[in-house]
Amino acid sequence: MSTSVIILAAGKGTRMRSSLPKVLQPLAGRPLLGHVIETAKKLQADNIITIYGHGGNLVQNEFAHEHVQWVEQAEQLGTGHAVKVTLPVLPKDGQALILSGDVPCISQQTLQKLLDAAQHTGIGLVTLTLPDASGYGRIVRKNGKIQAIVEHKDASDEQRQIKEINTGIYCVSNAKLHEWLPNLSNSNAQGEYYLTDIVAMAIADGLEVASVEPERAFEVEGVNDRVQLAALEREFQTYQAKLLMQQGVHLIDPSRFDLRGQLTVGQDVRIDINVIIEGDCAFGDNVEIGAGCVIKNTTIAAGTKVQPYSVFDSAIVGENTQIGPFSRLRPGAKLADEVHIGNFVEVKNSSIGLGSKANHFTYLGDAEVGAGSNIGAGTITCNYDGANKFKTIIGDAAFIGSNSSLVAPVKIGNGATVGAGSTITRDVADNCLAVERSKQFVKEDYPRPQKIKK
Amino acid sequence: MSTSVIILAAGKGTRMRSSLPKVLQPLAGRPLLGHVIETAKKLQADNIITIYGHGGNLVQNEFAHEHVQWVEQAEQLGTGHAVKVTLPVLPKDGQALILSGDVPCISQQTLQKLLDAAQHTGIGLVTLTLPDASGYGRIVRKNGKIQAIVEHKDASDEQRQIKEINTGIYCVSNAKLHEWLPNLSNSNAQGEYYLTDIVAMAIADGLEVASVEPERAFEVEGVNDRVQLAALEREFQTYQAKLLMQQGVHLIDPSRFDLRGQLTVGQDVRIDINVIIEGDCAFGDNVEIGAGCVIKNTTIAAGTKVQPYSVFDSAIVGENTQIGPFSRLRPGAKLADEVHIGNFVEVKNSSIGLGSKANHFTYLGDAEVGAGSNIGAGTITCNYDGANKFKTIIGDAAFIGSNSSLVAPVKIGNGATVGAGSTITRDVADNCLAVERSKQFVKEDYPRPQKIKK
Amino acid sequence: MSTSVIILAAGKGTRMRSSLPKVLQPLAGRPLLGHVIETAKKLQADNIITIYGHGGNLVQNEFAHEHVQWVEQAEQLGTGHAVKVTLPVLPKDGQALILSGDVPCISQQTLQKLLDAAQHTGIGLVTLTLPDASGYGRIVRKNGKIQAIVEHKDASDEQRQIKEINTGIYCVSNAKLHEWLPNLSNSNAQGEYYLTDIVAMAIADGLEVASVEPERAFEVEGVNDRVQLAALEREFQTYQAKLLMQQGVHLIDPSRFDLRGQLTVGQDVRIDINVIIEGDCAFGDNVEIGAGCVIKNTTIAAGTKVQPYSVFDSAIVGENTQIGPFSRLRPGAKLADEVHIGNFVEVKNSSIGLGSKANHFTYLGDAEVGAGSNIGAGTITCNYDGANKFKTIIGDAAFIGSNSSLVAPVKIGNGATVGAGSTITRDVADNCLAVERSKQFVKEDYPRPQKIKK
Repeated sequence: MSTSVIILAAGKGTRMRSSLPKVLQPLAGRPLLGHVIETAKKLQADNIITIYGHGGNLVQNEFAHEHVQWVEQAEQLGTGHAVKVTLPVLPKDGQALILSGDVPCISQQTLQKLLDAAQHTGIGLVTLTLPDASGYGRIVRKNGKIQAIVEHKDASDEQRQIKEINTGIYCVSNAKLHEWLPNLSNSNAQGEYYLTDIVAMAIADGLEVASVEPERAFEVEGVNDRVQLAALEREFQTYQAKLLMQQGVHLIDPSRFDLRGQLTVGQDVRIDINVIIEGDCAFGDNVEIGAGCVIKNTTIAAGTKVQPYSVFDSAIVGENTQIGPFSRLRPGAKLADEVHIGNFVEVKNSSIGLGSKANHFTYLGDAEVGAGSNIGAGTITCNYDGANKFKTIIGDAAFIGSNSSLVAPVKIGNGATVGAGSTITRDVADNCLAVERSKQFVKEDYPRPQKIKK
Repeated sequence: MSTSVIILAAGKGTRMRSSLPKVLQPLAGRPLLGHVIETAKKLQADNIITIYGHGGNLVQNEFAHEHVQWVEQAEQLGTGHAVKVTLPVLPKDGQALILSGDVPCISQQTLQKLLDAAQHTGIGLVTLTLPDASGYGRIVRKNGKIQAIVEHKDASDEQRQIKEINTGIYCVSNAKLHEWLPNLSNSNAQGEYYLTDIVAMAIADGLEVASVEPERAFEVEGVNDRVQLAALEREFQTYQAKLLMQQGVHLIDPSRFDLRGQLTVGQDVRIDINVIIEGDCAFGDNVEIGAGCVIKNTTIAAGTKVQPYSVFDSAIVGENTQIGPFSRLRPGAKLADEVHIGNFVEVKNSSIGLGSKANHFTYLGDAEVGAGSNIGAGTITCNYDGANKFKTIIGDAAFIGSNSSLVAPVKIGNGATVGAGSTITRDVADNCLAVERSKQFVKEDYPRPQKIKK
Repeated sequence: MSTSVIILAAGKGTRMRSSLPKVLQPLAGRPLLGHVIETAKKLQADNIITIYGHGGNLVQNEFAHEHVQWVEQAEQLGTGHAVKVTLPVLPKDGQALILSGDVPCISQQTLQKLLDAAQHTGIGLVTLTLPDASGYGRIVRKNGKIQAIVEHKDASDEQRQIKEINTGIYCVSNAKLHEWLPNLSNSNAQGEYYLTDIVAMAIADGLEVASVEPERAFEVEGVNDRVQLAALEREFQTYQAKLLMQQGVHLIDPSRFDLRGQLTVGQDVRIDINVIIEGDCAFGDNVEIGAGCVIKNTTIAAGTKVQPYSVFDSAIVGENTQIGPFSRLRPGAKLADEVHIGNFVEVKNSSIGLGSKANHFTYLGDAEVGAGSNIGAGTITCNYDGANKFKTIIGDAAFIGSNSSLVAPVKIGNGATVGAGSTITRDVADNCLAVERSKQFVKEDYPRPQKIKK
């Protein structure tokens, strides 16, 4: 049976107090709506119909790369109205999952169970059992079968004891949606069209209403303000941390770990406190990440140890390297095996060969460094002339003295040596020593500057 | 009616195990007593009378700038005695709030309600209802009216079921304090004068005792040891974080956020994990603060992005600047709009003009940089000659090559260029190139140093 | 009476999903088994017998320096079998504590109470009372005396109400172990020899079974997977933090503090958020440690303030020094009193004399700096020639200009001055000025590089 996913994403989210439409607020680094679309894609939905309203351009631009069908809900006349505006593009057969763009953590597993259950009945919904259901719409059952959904304000005292609630996530046969939605009424206090009413229609039609519960309660949590957003962020992070620990990752403190993307891990990866992982990262066996590192879109091979407070973006790191603390790898940094990058070192768009070392205060930008070279403290590749960027090429087994400036384009040969403090503007051939230095001048009994009286 | 605030601040706080008087221990960066004085000021109290004892000089020095009347309690003979020593300076009319210097979080709102309630009755107190009131003095009521305060040890089994307790925060008519306090007795096991006894006196006089409850339980929490101090710090931080989220701040993890002062925010400010804000800070719209930043007394204009692990103190930052990671702005740093300050850059007492960049390893101290200039990696303003500090002035559209040393006082003109690795001691005129460099000397087939055998 | 400690450490720990044997997984920076051995040593056990199995070589190597008797359990046939394999080396008299290598937090106090209790009865065990004891072996008592231990699956409904459980920690007379263990049976569903069965044997022999409860529940928590390991790490850290607060340490957030070793403190030590302490550290009175510092095997004397994000390893720091932010002290760094080490400064194997300052971007490696010297920003000691390391000696009251390179071996005399940007290769005598610099060359109307068209 074909599957459509309908996502309600038209709300403004006034309580977020933001200029951004609510569904673009990020959770774990991705917009709320992005989580829902991602889940829809995992379900291999035939079409993903997203209802936009407030800030629609921003929303559509954000997901321009996704295969999403956009339907505008110009006026906000309720959830039933929102789904109704999709009817022109909704297939006549198959079934539709109806999701909310501000309920980002609903899982593929729960939705698959819902799809399976509703396939037989024509309608199903996700319910949740809460210790305190106060305020929510209750699921009224008789002999286990759903009889009605009663809003809290309309519920009898007895019904208010019910702990099973409606989460607003539905799966409905498309044929039924085409049949029921035109008949929704807005004769209620708010003057809105409620999607919930289709449940009563289904029961009136003699259909059984299927239901499933999510594995984890936070799957059905919605986000209406910053406090809820922060709370859901922590629940989601706790869940992700647990999955990684179950894979064998040693998280020193799972409550101080943030994953904003995907992390693929080998065996015995150890991650210290307050590490942030962003985008797509992969760590090999025995990789150790020190406290406070921020690592984005980076691959780190087995055995590498990263010391605290290192910040990586779009880098590739070899095996058994030693990096940090306070190191910075910027996009295009490519470290071979056994490289050492020490404190206060920045590497950008540069490759560093096997076993080479840059242990302190170095900027390597647009450079190619061979194997076994040593880059002294304070070395700077002067890659920018104010208008253009040029490359610095350093061979194998070179030795660059401290505080050197290598003015690109420039090439330092294999086995070459640069004297400390030199500004190198011309290529240095293999095995040569290059020094740019004056005579050391001495003035005896030098009168030191005195404090100037003001 | 005139309002006096009496603050009990004479306790030593032995359990803090500190050389500091207890009321000087900091909560959210401010001494406990400072919080109470601040709240008293917000109430526009006519006079703030603080009772000091242990470490009195330290306490008075800390608040020398505040308009506080100090009264010494030479001997610690109980809370009643403490308030009694204020009688010589306490006005005869009006009413007095009696607060504790180690109960820092009591809110203006709660106290205002207490003032209003006690105005009509002559006496009022703050009570709190606890799930487990064990150990506390209970509020005994009859037909809703306070009949007595019974200490836990004196309470009957029935009274021990009472969940409403006395918090020790009172509001009393000054006339009554002048009447009652001289009559307090110390005929009890401890031989102390208890302030609580005035409640019995009030009831004996036929007065009704008003009461109010605080909005948040932690308002009436006292601090006696480091464990309680840390717990209250967290409750206060959680509360502050919630207020900011309600204003629309996106806190990625409110349990990893520390505000030690005041933060004013625009719309859509995003603050990542483990940020510390100190003193008075203001962030414009869309400001983003990366993980682990420590920001003190700094203003950051709209659209600026600060990357992780940047440390600012007393800086002013323009719009749409990009700063960090690992940047340091020290007092007097003033960045215009669209400035870029990159990794391992320190700016002290310097202004940087529109769109200028210092992207790596730079120390700008006592400098003025114009607009559109580029400061190369490793540039250092040599502002100190061992005795005096001098200024470095860099014009607009200047280009300072990497690893340059600018020996102040020195001026680099508009459009001027400094060659990489130069030590510049004389002014460089507009549009000139200045280079301080020797010939690059080459020695072929240079025999590299060998490991010395020992 | 002589005390043996038997530690079960043969398990593989499959659920850890690690290549490391479970007892080598670290908690607070020390292998699980290391905690147990440390506690055994504090009890002054006459011998510590450790049963190894999976990964036995790794385990023995890790503790090669400890006075431990190793016994192999080649096949994993149950806890009773494990203890039985120790009989050949277990003394005939005295008593034995039977501990688990994966229950790391059992305290000396609890074990001492157990030893004392079991001394009179011949057998004792540690029990724990839980709100929900579901799944655990229950302690069945009659008139307060232990009658049996009943596994959950064998327990009657009434027995399942029992909240007191067996923790698997025993103290038994060695004579009884020699008597009972050979008689253990493996006639059960798993075909294993259960140590628990000795309790039934004791009762059958008419012995009273003593019991003690631990002061803290986490003392008896075992570790089977990464989730449990992380949870126990937090409980242990919370406990350690509390101990430090009770000693008077001001921890700004005890839930963001990690102690992986020992910390000795003076009065009024203040530690900000996210500090990690490793190995053996000692902080004097009024030491302040800023947010995010990582400090290992370092002594810091009174009055020193360390600013955020400083990383120290094996350093000795004097009184009233100021360090950081972003400073790095590596092994052998030795700072005298009143030294200033500023941002982006690295000190390795170097001593810095009274009141000397290195405030920015400096690498001091293999250096000796006297008193009252000022090391300018960007100074680098070039201590490595690619093969050997040499020393840099700087006298008292020297002034090293910014961006200087000091090529070791080299000596800068007392009161000497080095001009900014100099590469110093020859010794500088007392009170001399040394400069290595060319003439400042100027080219007027310099045509700035233009963007190259591609």
